Amino acid sequence: MNRPPAPVIVVAPDKFKGSLSAPAVAAAVAQGLRRVWPDAEIRACPVADGGDGTLDAILACGGTRGTREVSGASGARRSADYGIVETPLGPTAIIEVAQIVALIDAAGTTSPVSRRTTRGVGELVEALLDQGVRRFLVGLGGSSTNDGGAGMLAALGVRLIDADGAEVAPTPEGLAALAQVDAASLDTRLAQSDITIMSDVDNPLCGARGATAIFGPQKGVRDEEVPSIDATLARWAGMIERALGREAAATPGAGAAGGLGFAFKLAGGRLRSGAEVVAEIVGLDRALAGAGWAITGEGRSDAQTLLRKAPFVVAEKARARGVPATLLSGAIDAAALRELDRHFSGCFALPAGPASRDDSMSRAASLLADRAEALARLWSAASQAASGVMHAPG
Amino acid sequence: MNRPPAPVIVVAPDKFKGSLSAPAVAAAVAQGLRRVWPDAEIRACPVADGGDGTLDAILACGGTRGTREVSGASGARRSADYGIVETPLGPTAIIEVAQIVALIDAAGTTSPVSRRTTRGVGELVEALLDQGVRRFLVGLGGSSTNDGGAGMLAALGVRLIDADGAEVAPTPEGLAALAQVDAASLDTRLAQSDITIMSDVDNPLCGARGATAIFGPQKGVRDEEVPSIDATLARWAGMIERALGREAAATPGAGAAGGLGFAFKLAGGRLRSGAEVVAEIVGLDRALAGAGWAITGEGRSDAQTLLRKAPFVVAEKARARGVPATLLSGAIDAAALRELDRHFSGCFALPAGPASRDDSMSRAASLLADRAEALARLWSAASQAASGVMHAPG
Repeated sequence: MNRPPAPVIVVAPDKFKGSLSAPAVAAAVAQGLRRVWPDAEIRACPVADGGDGTLDAILACGGTRGTREVSGASGARRSADYGIVETPLGPTAIIEVAQIVALIDAAGTTSPVSRRTTRGVGELVEALLDQGVRRFLVGLGGSSTNDGGAGMLAALGVRLIDADGAEVAPTPEGLAALAQVDAASLDTRLAQSDITIMSDVDNPLCGARGATAIFGPQKGVRDEEVPSIDATLARWAGMIERALGREAAATPGAGAAGGLGFAFKLAGGRLRSGAEVVAEIVGLDRALAGAGWAITGEGRSDAQTLLRKAPFVVAEKARARGVPATLLSGAIDAAALRELDRHFSGCFALPAGPASRDDSMSRAASLLADRAEALARLWSAASQAASGVMHAPG
Repeated sequence: MNRPPAPVIVVAPDKFKGSLSAPAVAAAVAQGLRRVWPDAEIRACPVADGGDGTLDAILACGGTRGTREVSGASGARRSADYGIVETPLGPTAIIEVAQIVALIDAAGTTSPVSRRTTRGVGELVEALLDQGVRRFLVGLGGSSTNDGGAGMLAALGVRLIDADGAEVAPTPEGLAALAQVDAASLDTRLAQSDITIMSDVDNPLCGARGATAIFGPQKGVRDEEVPSIDATLARWAGMIERALGREAAATPGAGAAGGLGFAFKLAGGRLRSGAEVVAEIVGLDRALAGAGWAITGEGRSDAQTLLRKAPFVVAEKARARGVPATLLSGAIDAAALRELDRHFSGCFALPAGPASRDDSMSRAASLLADRAEALARLWSAASQAASGVMHAPG
């Protein structure tokens, strides 16, 4: 009797934050699998959840990477990557807000959150509109700003005016002096565009569950500042909503990215789960068709994973096609394991023994390959056993 | 179509040194497997390699545990466990040398290695001979002594005499003054006994590969003492060999347990691999018959494992029966992984992420159950896939 063939394997991991991009994770896993099955059909399909790493995952499946100099959160120029993916409906731009106003830069910026702005995001959108792009996919994760998206809209033509008729900065501090909003010059090409914003955040712009109250503190908003900044954003929201004749502040996701979600929604953007959108763009469903096994993972799996993070969405789509999905993450929170076990055909972690976080992260690629190899060996043994083939290791 | 049934699983781990006995490891693994397959036939078959833990593994499969007070390595009385297993050929006593003259006690003893003795081992043998036992299985691992087995033989009647006709202590220090050996009173029941000594050590008693040179330093022999103690053991060996008209010092394993291997060999003991003997006694081969999967493991798997340690022997016996064996250890040395992979259907470790050694060890039982569950889920998915059953998780 012959050994059963290797399964067709979909390798669809998220990034391992701080160590490997999703495509690099997929490559390492594939390398380990090939040690057991040199000729296996392995469908690399890196995923992301709309936060940082989204661009990497999408561009791994095609498209071109561009770079543009824009304003960073604190005003200093910085270069931001974006992607262009050709679709039957025309070019789609992939924007990662974290490329422009990243939280990760927050510590290094001199400005406090009250002076940070999303203007650079608007600059990039405008440049892309100039290039003829009318389809946008915007990942909202990882911003350091809390400007209600005023910066983005200001860059696209909205004028923010104080009581003396002077322009104010599109920052929490500037908006505090806002007396009037003039949206007459808002770029009309926005209205002709198809904008999808990706976020798992369903908070409204203001109030107890709003951007400032919930996400402000991690961006440096002091507890005592929360009420005034929240009120400032509420006032800004009221004015821009009236100016555009549209409302969005109270809708789910308006509070994403410090209110950038609100601004994009006003500009016609539709909010979707980042993991779902990315899965769609990278063709996960197509990849799963006819596959026998899926492997997904992320840097750390915990209770958040269950809130429809990328590996969860992979497992769900795999299940819909009858494909078992195994989780291989850098670490798995013991407290969430019981629940994760319900969704994955085995949850596995990187370390081969006691190890520090730094060690695991710096050797992630080699550990991933080794763990993937072990999974493949076990899979192979089990499928041989089920096929009634006598075991022959190696 | 029905799901394929759970495989019959042999769970045959060694102890996880410092945290769990082999039976406790087997129980934890079985617990994890049952979360996936509540009704699976799981054959717990803890193993050992003849060192400490051997008694636990063997007694888990039947037999009774006894305790006897004997001399410890430094002379102070201590209680030592032993086992009695009934066999068709009569009762077999299981003696773990580490129960009497453990290395683990070396730090706590006041005596230097030059004053330590294996007398307690002989005392236990004599007490068992008095009980009518004529079959002995002696695990030599983990001794703190380097007395050439003189203590053991002294306890059984051999007299060690100095130039003045006075008895000398059966220790390296005492043997240095040895002028004459009188073996006339050696317990004659030894010659009627069937003695199996278990060790993976193949060193001779003396010389560059001898007990003192190779294992002495880890027992506290200072480098500069090696030549004189080695010469003392060589002289003792020559005298007792002449007295008994038998030779053993140059044979493989004579250097085990500081020369206790030599003394047991003179007494008619046959040296065997501990892992092989234990596997035989616990009925590993019988357990593997008709099994579909074996899981083995140990505290740490490394290059030593390949030198026919217990998990290796489990894999080998499993392979002979066409049963895939998976390794689930506390830690797996990356340097040995490539080679281990050739022998196991997947090598897996305990941690679910970056973790300290202490943390892994203190939570070993719960981690084992979790990892075993993950293995079972993956096995289940793979065998369903191979059987053409659509995947249904949970």
